[in-house]
Amino acid sequence: MTFKELMLKRESCRKYDGRPVPHDVLLELMETACLSPSACNSQPWKLIAAEGEVAKQISQDIQKSGRNQFCENVGSFIVLCETPATLRAFVNKESQYYAQMDLGMITMALTLAAADKGLSTCILGLFDEPSVRKTLSIPDEIPIRLIISVGYAAEDGVRDKVRKDESETISFDRF
Amino acid sequence: MTFKELMLKRESCRKYDGRPVPHDVLLELMETACLSPSACNSQPWKLIAAEGEVAKQISQDIQKSGRNQFCENVGSFIVLCETPATLRAFVNKESQYYAQMDLGMITMALTLAAADKGLSTCILGLFDEPSVRKTLSIPDEIPIRLIISVGYAAEDGVRDKVRKDESETISFDRF
Repeated sequence: MTFKELMLKRESCRKYDGRPVPHDVLLELMETACLSPSACNSQPWKLIAAEGEVAKQISQDIQKSGRNQFCENVGSFIVLCETPATLRAFVNKESQYYAQMDLGMITMALTLAAADKGLSTCILGLFDEPSVRKTLSIPDEIPIRLIISVGYAAEDGVRDKVRKDESETISFDRF
Repeated sequence: MTFKELMLKRESCRKYDGRPVPHDVLLELMETACLSPSACNSQPWKLIAAEGEVAKQISQDIQKSGRNQFCENVGSFIVLCETPATLRAFVNKESQYYAQMDLGMITMALTLAAADKGLSTCILGLFDEPSVRKTLSIPDEIPIRLIISVGYAAEDGVRDKVRKDESETISFDRF
C-alpha cells in the first residue's frame, strides 16, 4: 500500500460493530503515533486509551455533548491531552500555538496507524469535557484536545473524499 | 513498508544535496496531503510550493530569521498558510483552535508523503515572516504557519528517534 492509498483508506467512520480493539493493538497504535515530530521535540502530549467499562463511560461522556451518538457502539477510545511544551528560548511563542499543531500531527499519525491495521477511527472534537476529565482523572490544568474512536467498521468500502478544488488549496510560487 | 516503518523513516533532515524536487512530485505531495481530515471538513489551508528562483528567495527569507541556515542548500519548499475555517454552528470555537490542529494534520501527511517517495523534509516554524509574505504575495490576513523544506538528503541512513519514556506519554484508563 502506498502512502496515498493509506490516505484514501483513512476516513471518519461513524458505524462500528462494537468490538473493542485488543489492548496490545491500542498500545502499538499509540507507540507508533509517539514517533511523530513536534516543535523542539517537546512532545507536548499524553495519550490515554480507554478500554472496557472505562470506554463505555467515555462513550457516555461524549454523547452527553448532544452529538456523536454513534459512539454508543464504539469499543475503544484514545483521548489526546496537551501537556506543557518546553520550547527553546529563541522560539517565538507569541505568533504560533505550536502545541496544537503538534497535537494535530500525532492525531494524523494515530488515525493512519489504525487504518494501516484495518481499523477505523473518527476524530472527535465534541464531548462533555468535565465528564471525560473526571472519568480519566485528568488534572484541571491539562487541556483535553481530541478523542479518537477506534474500532471495526460495520460496513465495508470507503467513501470518495470530498475536497475543495485544487485551485483553492494548492499553488506554485505565489499565493 | 508498514506505516510504522514509514514513521521511523520520516525525520527532520538538515543536510540536503541541493537538487530541487520535480514540479510533478511537489504537486503529487500536496495533492496527497490535501486528503487530510479537518474539523467539519473545512480544509483551512493553502499550500504554496516554491521552486527555482522563488525557492532561492524563500531560502533567504528563512535564513534572515537567524536560524535554519541549512536551507541555503534546499531546492524546494512548501509554505503552509491557514485560511479562514468555516465550522458548523454547534462547534465550540472558544475551547479549541481547530485550524491549527488541522494544519498539524496536513503537515504530518505532507512529510510522510515525502518520506514514502524517498524525499527528506524538515518542518520549520522560524522564518522572516514579512519577507516570506512579500515573496509569495500572501495577503496580510492569512497566517503563514509553517514552511516545509523538501529535497534529497546529502547523507544516507536514519537517526534513532529520541522520545520521552512511554510512562510519560501513554496510559490506559486514567491520566
